[in-house]
Amino acid sequence: MGEAAATDGKRRRARGGGGAARRAERTATSFDTAPTIRRRTPTLDILSEETLALIEANAETVLEEIGVSFPENPGALARWREAGADVRGERVHIPKGLARKLCEAAPSNFTHHARNPERSVEIGGNNLVFAPVYGPPFVRDLDGGRRYGTIEDFRTFVKLGYMSKWLHLSGGTVCEPTDVPVNKRHLDMLMAHMTLSDKPYMGAVTDKDWAKDCVSMSKVLFGDAFVDQNAVMTSLININSPLTFDSVMMGTLEVYAAANQACIISPFIVGGAMAPVSVVGTLTQVLAEVMAGVAYSQLVRPGAPVIFGAFVTSIDMNSGAPTFGTPEASQITMGAGQLARRMGLPFRSAGGFTGAKLPDAQAGYESANSLQMGMNAGVNFMLHACGWLEGGLVASFEKFVMDADQLGTIHKFAAGVPDDENAQAMDAIREVGPGGHYLGCAHTQANFKTAFWRSELLDYKPFETWSEEGARDTAVLAAEKVRSMLSKYVEPAIDPGIREALNAFVAKRKEEMPDAYT
Amino acid sequence: MGEAAATDGKRRRARGGGGAARRAERTATSFDTAPTIRRRTPTLDILSEETLALIEANAETVLEEIGVSFPENPGALARWREAGADVRGERVHIPKGLARKLCEAAPSNFTHHARNPERSVEIGGNNLVFAPVYGPPFVRDLDGGRRYGTIEDFRTFVKLGYMSKWLHLSGGTVCEPTDVPVNKRHLDMLMAHMTLSDKPYMGAVTDKDWAKDCVSMSKVLFGDAFVDQNAVMTSLININSPLTFDSVMMGTLEVYAAANQACIISPFIVGGAMAPVSVVGTLTQVLAEVMAGVAYSQLVRPGAPVIFGAFVTSIDMNSGAPTFGTPEASQITMGAGQLARRMGLPFRSAGGFTGAKLPDAQAGYESANSLQMGMNAGVNFMLHACGWLEGGLVASFEKFVMDADQLGTIHKFAAGVPDDENAQAMDAIREVGPGGHYLGCAHTQANFKTAFWRSELLDYKPFETWSEEGARDTAVLAAEKVRSMLSKYVEPAIDPGIREALNAFVAKRKEEMPDAYT
Repeated sequence: MGEAAATDGKRRRARGGGGAARRAERTATSFDTAPTIRRRTPTLDILSEETLALIEANAETVLEEIGVSFPENPGALARWREAGADVRGERVHIPKGLARKLCEAAPSNFTHHARNPERSVEIGGNNLVFAPVYGPPFVRDLDGGRRYGTIEDFRTFVKLGYMSKWLHLSGGTVCEPTDVPVNKRHLDMLMAHMTLSDKPYMGAVTDKDWAKDCVSMSKVLFGDAFVDQNAVMTSLININSPLTFDSVMMGTLEVYAAANQACIISPFIVGGAMAPVSVVGTLTQVLAEVMAGVAYSQLVRPGAPVIFGAFVTSIDMNSGAPTFGTPEASQITMGAGQLARRMGLPFRSAGGFTGAKLPDAQAGYESANSLQMGMNAGVNFMLHACGWLEGGLVASFEKFVMDADQLGTIHKFAAGVPDDENAQAMDAIREVGPGGHYLGCAHTQANFKTAFWRSELLDYKPFETWSEEGARDTAVLAAEKVRSMLSKYVEPAIDPGIREALNAFVAKRKEEMPDAYT
Repeated sequence: MGEAAATDGKRRRARGGGGAARRAERTATSFDTAPTIRRRTPTLDILSEETLALIEANAETVLEEIGVSFPENPGALARWREAGADVRGERVHIPKGLARKLCEAAPSNFTHHARNPERSVEIGGNNLVFAPVYGPPFVRDLDGGRRYGTIEDFRTFVKLGYMSKWLHLSGGTVCEPTDVPVNKRHLDMLMAHMTLSDKPYMGAVTDKDWAKDCVSMSKVLFGDAFVDQNAVMTSLININSPLTFDSVMMGTLEVYAAANQACIISPFIVGGAMAPVSVVGTLTQVLAEVMAGVAYSQLVRPGAPVIFGAFVTSIDMNSGAPTFGTPEASQITMGAGQLARRMGLPFRSAGGFTGAKLPDAQAGYESANSLQMGMNAGVNFMLHACGWLEGGLVASFEKFVMDADQLGTIHKFAAGVPDDENAQAMDAIREVGPGGHYLGCAHTQANFKTAFWRSELLDYKPFETWSEEGARDTAVLAAEKVRSMLSKYVEPAIDPGIREALNAFVAKRKEEMPDAYT
């Protein structure tokens, strides 16, 4: 990597510790992480104000006339009734304007804190942060092929994420650790995020008791008072599109919102299956769902941080398979970004999406299309930014470092274009003149180190050198980079007392629970 | 392909022919080509009006103070002197405002005619057309590896281009036919474009006599009067950056402009070598060069169609290799697009650029980045849109069909987002309701065929099917598509009299010339 740098004295601890902790910190190695991207480039706004207003009016109609379903959740129905909605059975009809009004209590931006304060990120506004792939049951690498993920694979991904300069978050379920009982996975996953990395992490969402465990562990790491006042987790609440807010996800949302922790309210849209086959129709449903979900979060705790989410793919009408990097997904994502900005909410979408089975050219095309789409859509929180393969079924080690490298291009592009005297380079143009070259001129010498983004993975060698070195393709280069990174991994320092307390919490919770449905 | 369609009666001939010609047309097979893209999406304008004005002021300073060089071209110097420039030796100092004023005579858009009028394209305004890779001495395919290109390879590329639905132009030097003497290549290349395809083509540029041959052959194909009044070629005039207009390229420009044929005036920029290492500095030089070149074309023939070109890559400061798909190239390309629109000129840039040696993930990432950049930069004429590999040293058969497939995503995206009643899909949302799915609903049934862009190359199959079918990566799928396309190729009809006249012209010219430096 060449990025390792001692940060003695630079790092503040989130919580007090003894002399052992300080000693541990003094001897620790750290790896550079680029700060939150402050976007200086415009968004690509493909919808007119008229179309946005039409979508919003239609979404209000959907909420009032069709309504949304909150099944098996009497508490939610009671909250909605009290807020003024027309609740019939499990269907909540939300009068026009009510959801939008409730959403106003949500903050337009917030800080998601990391235990290493230098790694804390800003969500919302012109900011953009990257989180890795989330959810795949399988992993793949060049040596081992495709197989079920294990906790050891999970830990390896956390280490790679920690060492990836352009990646901001450690993530959530980077892969499913299928060798751990389902009901205990969240404990081991969170422990890995907390101890093998010092970047911000995401909490468990598939059971409200597990969400409570994540809050408890976070309190051990950050302290009770800090967690109550600050977001230390951003968790992914999927809406069961169309228009259904299932009680498991809502139970988790209730836990996190009550604890003042951030949630992404994210319609899960495979266009043509969970939403209409048109862009504007899909956006109408997305907006209705997000408005209802965000409004509900604010009924639980006004001011709880929340993100306008949109996971969007199209469907291959021949095979029914989800497709990625497609023009319709770009249009929907860009439109959703415009809608999120209209509501003053942070926006989550996009990622390094692909349907490819291998980290091959298809993976490259589709992922680059998706990453560019996300950048231009004004995404604030990009989940699945690296490692995604095979429609999200697989977390690929090689793809992880490929995508993570590409994220650097977005950092550089979004930084915008300076036009100061040095950038104008008039002296250089004068110095070189017609027919000359710039390689040796003073301006080039003064600026070349930072002038151009440089991949730390892709091949830039002459053909002959590349041939002599084995004519390696990108996947082979990436596999070598994975090995090289892991060989240099050093765990970030942590207060031994906190580590002990976390271990004790995990051990106790594991003892309390039976080994459920592995 | 499944795209073959008889077009009897639909096609008009560009020029009269006898009964044999009509019979040939009646029995011909054709392949769909999508029309010129009429962009309905916005451009990504990353530079402010202030920065654009600053660049323009600096470019005017460059033209006046530093000047541009027209070596070994007394005719050009005389034209410039007469127009009011301050000519010192071979250096032309252009007073502020003069170049810009001369550029005003150039049309803001024009039609590039194909011999099949259905294949004619519009250049400029909101239009976007695609042309294939241009110039590689090498070709590559999965079976034969990397090797020097031959005329047979060239013909194969022309056939693939003819059959590629999303590709508008047949192109120019798709690969160098290195088995033909250098001074006769243009004859064989143009003959291939004229007879194996009916899409628009580009003319030779590396010798003014060869340019004259291209004009002569075009007159055989289209008729003298038609060629004099209409652009039937768009040819690539590279500027020898920085600020040098060599006599070979200018000689060719003089031939084409005098013949009212279109030229792309294109600075050839490897940032850090031929231009400053900063975005604004590079744009300043690009604008100065294009203004001087376009102005010169208008001195030759006011009103001659011309395109604001910009070929931009950055350089890897470690190895000196050009790099592609980088953020700085995107910024420069987008800025150049803004400058071209300010001047009211059509804009040429971008392509499916990559430095990769193989059609692998690197090729996918970099090419997708470049293609998206071109779309968002408002490019009107995209050269190198498909087939480019290894920094332009190699034309790849597999990459050609990969990129050509991706061009479909741009066609679809740029078409914009309808918001009519069908697109709003409110009836579908009502019909499906919370918890339902859209696969069978009336709206989906009515719209699914056109709703989502579908790749004709990429893999959308379930993992198990994909595995059983041999776990093919994208390069293997592309190689199979190349074979499949070529097996279905049918030559477009052409008037036998015209073909005979073209053959006679080529034979005569080949006889007149010695076999020069192969």
